[in-house]
Amino acid sequence: MKLTKEQEQEIKELQSQKNTTKRVVAPELEKILYEAIPILDHGFVRVIDYMGDDTSVVQAARVSYGKGTKKVSTDAGLIKYLMRHWHSTPFEMCEIKYHIKLPIFIARQWIRHRTANVNEYSARYSILDKEFYLPTSDNLAAQSKINRQGRGEVLKGEQAKKVLDLLKEDAERTYKNYEEMLNERYDGSTIEENKAGLARELARMNLTLNTYTQWYWKTDLLNLMNFLRLRADSHAQYEIRAYAEAMLETLKKWVPITYEAFMDYRVGGTEVSAKGKLIIQKLIKGEKIQLEDSGLSKREWNELMQAFDLNDKSI
Amino acid sequence: MKLTKEQEQEIKELQSQKNTTKRVVAPELEKILYEAIPILDHGFVRVIDYMGDDTSVVQAARVSYGKGTKKVSTDAGLIKYLMRHWHSTPFEMCEIKYHIKLPIFIARQWIRHRTANVNEYSARYSILDKEFYLPTSDNLAAQSKINRQGRGEVLKGEQAKKVLDLLKEDAERTYKNYEEMLNERYDGSTIEENKAGLARELARMNLTLNTYTQWYWKTDLLNLMNFLRLRADSHAQYEIRAYAEAMLETLKKWVPITYEAFMDYRVGGTEVSAKGKLIIQKLIKGEKIQLEDSGLSKREWNELMQAFDLNDKSI
Amino acid sequence: MKLTKEQEQEIKELQSQKNTTKRVVAPELEKILYEAIPILDHGFVRVIDYMGDDTSVVQAARVSYGKGTKKVSTDAGLIKYLMRHWHSTPFEMCEIKYHIKLPIFIARQWIRHRTANVNEYSARYSILDKEFYLPTSDNLAAQSKINRQGRGEVLKGEQAKKVLDLLKEDAERTYKNYEEMLNERYDGSTIEENKAGLARELARMNLTLNTYTQWYWKTDLLNLMNFLRLRADSHAQYEIRAYAEAMLETLKKWVPITYEAFMDYRVGGTEVSAKGKLIIQKLIKGEKIQLEDSGLSKREWNELMQAFDLNDKSI
Amino acid sequence: MKLTKEQEQEIKELQSQKNTTKRVVAPELEKILYEAIPILDHGFVRVIDYMGDDTSVVQAARVSYGKGTKKVSTDAGLIKYLMRHWHSTPFEMCEIKYHIKLPIFIARQWIRHRTANVNEYSARYSILDKEFYLPTSDNLAAQSKINRQGRGEVLKGEQAKKVLDLLKEDAERTYKNYEEMLNERYDGSTIEENKAGLARELARMNLTLNTYTQWYWKTDLLNLMNFLRLRADSHAQYEIRAYAEAMLETLKKWVPITYEAFMDYRVGGTEVSAKGKLIIQKLIKGEKIQLEDSGLSKREWNELMQAFDLNDKSI
Repeated sequence: MKLTKEQEQEIKELQSQKNTTKRVVAPELEKILYEAIPILDHGFVRVIDYMGDDTSVVQAARVSYGKGTKKVSTDAGLIKYLMRHWHSTPFEMCEIKYHIKLPIFIARQWIRHRTANVNEYSARYSILDKEFYLPTSDNLAAQSKINRQGRGEVLKGEQAKKVLDLLKEDAERTYKNYEEMLNERYDGSTIEENKAGLARELARMNLTLNTYTQWYWKTDLLNLMNFLRLRADSHAQYEIRAYAEAMLETLKKWVPITYEAFMDYRVGGTEVSAKGKLIIQKLIKGEKIQLEDSGLSKREWNELMQAFDLNDKSI
Repeated sequence: MKLTKEQEQEIKELQSQKNTTKRVVAPELEKILYEAIPILDHGFVRVIDYMGDDTSVVQAARVSYGKGTKKVSTDAGLIKYLMRHWHSTPFEMCEIKYHIKLPIFIARQWIRHRTANVNEYSARYSILDKEFYLPTSDNLAAQSKINRQGRGEVLKGEQAKKVLDLLKEDAERTYKNYEEMLNERYDGSTIEENKAGLARELARMNLTLNTYTQWYWKTDLLNLMNFLRLRADSHAQYEIRAYAEAMLETLKKWVPITYEAFMDYRVGGTEVSAKGKLIIQKLIKGEKIQLEDSGLSKREWNELMQAFDLNDKSI
Repeated sequence: MKLTKEQEQEIKELQSQKNTTKRVVAPELEKILYEAIPILDHGFVRVIDYMGDDTSVVQAARVSYGKGTKKVSTDAGLIKYLMRHWHSTPFEMCEIKYHIKLPIFIARQWIRHRTANVNEYSARYSILDKEFYLPTSDNLAAQSKINRQGRGEVLKGEQAKKVLDLLKEDAERTYKNYEEMLNERYDGSTIEENKAGLARELARMNLTLNTYTQWYWKTDLLNLMNFLRLRADSHAQYEIRAYAEAMLETLKKWVPITYEAFMDYRVGGTEVSAKGKLIIQKLIKGEKIQLEDSGLSKREWNELMQAFDLNDKSI
Repeated sequence: MKLTKEQEQEIKELQSQKNTTKRVVAPELEKILYEAIPILDHGFVRVIDYMGDDTSVVQAARVSYGKGTKKVSTDAGLIKYLMRHWHSTPFEMCEIKYHIKLPIFIARQWIRHRTANVNEYSARYSILDKEFYLPTSDNLAAQSKINRQGRGEVLKGEQAKKVLDLLKEDAERTYKNYEEMLNERYDGSTIEENKAGLARELARMNLTLNTYTQWYWKTDLLNLMNFLRLRADSHAQYEIRAYAEAMLETLKKWVPITYEAFMDYRVGGTEVSAKGKLIIQKLIKGEKIQLEDSGLSKREWNELMQAFDLNDKSI
């Protein structure tokens, strides 16, 4: 990511603000407010506004349960209780707004989270920046043989080079032709005077899906955690995970107590089915049990063993 | 509304905060932050948090339309344009949180606005306050003869007194019996030692619908305006309108430019059907037109005449 | 629940329809379509429309994953996989509509599920039926001593009788006074000629929260399961659980394969936190472990032991 | 759009179903159920399921307003009333599901309507079809000079040919390189044995935005109308309007009475601001009024004149 001088200057000015407010403030998050955290080759994540903090969650829960919550003596205890029992509404009382720059094919995954507010840069109105995502060689993975949506080994040598060259050439050529059709360059200059350009809303269709777009994305704390649980997970596509992991760090700065509970109960936790519970119970009693007698499918069995890090052989 | 000394003290402390933030601040709204604005006999509206202001709407629109918005030179011009053309997403970029005390039958209307976050005081956990809504004599209206959901003349004399007495007696008696069943008084003291009380989640069913409840209610600027358009309207029930009107004032302090556009295009505006447009066109041309030839139903005709303040007779 | 003759006749007519359609049909659900399943003393649940069945879930998943799903050979296997991995969108492709009669205090819990469409009987327009919920003596529970939102022992003898008498008298008196204020009886007849009645939107505030209301409630399969997971759970209030359990039966008739997966992975399953997983792993290895060394709070420890039916003592 | 023989056969079979149901049926919609209506060069719209019809809207409204609706004697009268007064919930009681094939850049506009359920073909799992949108020469418009998001004159001669050639060549080349990177052809055959292909989730980034994708899209009647109001409008981009117009026809077959009211009050209607109302009133009274005295901006003035087809000059 290379910010323009203008952008750097703007961020600097925003960060030098010192406004007075009666609202609650999250001091660690304030420190990085407006900052552009680099993601992938040209992308970024910036927190640009927020509302509330851990105490807002507690405050909302105490309104709901009234005197009933007095027994839970600490804020941390209450937040853990809420997380463990899937209480959702107190976590909706905090809000955060990000400015994000990301490749279009990732934006298409991201937007499926419907409970957020979005303002995306519109290529009907304006020309898209000349920036496309090209994976580093570490991330140039082959299709997994065993998982239809997964990655296998990293491609090497000639083949890797070939793939990168194709991605680069195609992105550059289609962008050049985009300018050609628009009769306008990315910097706004006209290519050929006295000639009409194709409508922007049409010309954009020539761009490749790794072209970068950007948007403001605003959501509440509950839905942010729902997003992070799915997208910071090891099964998520690497490119979206890169964003989610940076956002996890902003979550930690914003609501540190909620973050701890989230890591323990959601990210690090697991689910066990009714049938799975019976297996665990038997294992605890020291009984031997095998896939064949378990009532589980091969796949379920493997997932259960993996969740509890059990060596299949030793059972 | 009578706040307890404790509550008054708490509000005072919250209001004396001076936190430093890099976020945008709405100075007029800051002045009334946490303040309890009295509504009806025991209710209130308090703004307890917010995010963004008019510039956040503009900022979001400019991200979307990029350089395309540079031609609209002023923020006010852009906000008016967005409002007029029903652009919705830029208005979703601001958020506000209220603490509201309101009678249960009004809460039941209110909650139908689904795009908000709510934490309500739970009568499963805690005992409800001993407060019920009793209309002032001005608001003791008869059923309208012409509008199935409207109010007619105000009741008078003996009948008005009778109604108020019944409302008061029934609310007090059912509350007293609620305490009796709980074996606990509203102040938390036990009525009869060594006797079990009925579960709270059951006892609450004995309360009348004018009992007050309270909640935190958080929504974005777009959905707040949707709420206010319906609930600050003259067709809304008086009791919910009283809340909406106080909230309109908070809107004005928060986002004054958006407020102006909202009043012009939404609250003060009207809609005209395809058939209605033909009538207006004829009237402008000076043609005579009558209900019979209009293609409108009697009801539609009346609504159209009323919307443009036209004296039916003179046409 | 006593249906009027009119209602019984209407249901009979609806059930005698034989329309021809090219849409998929759920034969077991068709059998009970329109039927009023009695709940509590005056409530009911009726399925009145639906769209899709188990094959619609499969169809949607196969569109998403394309040829990728061919390896999962059976519909049941695919539905189980989707449920286990929290895939949500394929379950949103089915829709169901219920007609429900329920006490207002339960309706207030229910409506918090926002992702549903609702049309409720409006007491602004029309007079509410003269029906109130009175618990059976089995359900007249004392407040739990250990759980702020739970029930303890059942009340007995004199006290139980007293509670029931109070509930009945208060509901009847407030309803009688509701009619008095309206100057109209529940059957629509006027009480005193030439006298105005109080507006309906006001008079309703005198009713108690156990008065019955009714609504149409429509939701998709995913959100129905979210509702049932919470409301058919043993921690849910008995009165709403009674509805949820009847609806579970309709789920089984509608989408039997999804129902099986739901019972195994959601209803019968459990969640284990990161810390909880460590405990389970140690127990499986035969290690001794005690609350003190577990890193869990007393409450978390108990919940974990309970989830796996472990006798605390033996560990 | 060319369907494969397999697809044609499948549609034929689905259409030959004759299932018996007690549900309401929309006979005109049944006639085209499953049919693929061609849109653009390779796209289509298919209605594949639905729930409810005009009577479902009426039924829901009558539950809400109870006896209060008896005065509105006809279903059409009631539906018109609901539409005119923006009653929303009764229209949410009907549901429809489409199968749609569309270019990705249009899918990106479409998905911004969040209140719908979507299952899209996943290019993480499967290879996208080798189909891209190429505009007809009629639709190859230049960028508008006056409207930042509009189209101007149609491009002609050499320039038009050039644009079409570029679009075609770039789409074909990027698709060919997509296959090359995958080491797999669109028909599933391997290009070079014993060589790994790039992961699908990565290779897709090389495709251009006019590549076709497909999805199931399910929404309720209210949100369908919200979509159509925006997307069948003359300001919508031609390519999405082509879909919306075909869907308007399905709306007409499904709920003909609602369709009529929608066309009159929404599509053909207009909105007038508070200031605009004053202008209209003066014009009706025969007063002269000019932009300068109107309190409107130039742009607002023009929009008002246009809405009522008024010749600016004559006023």
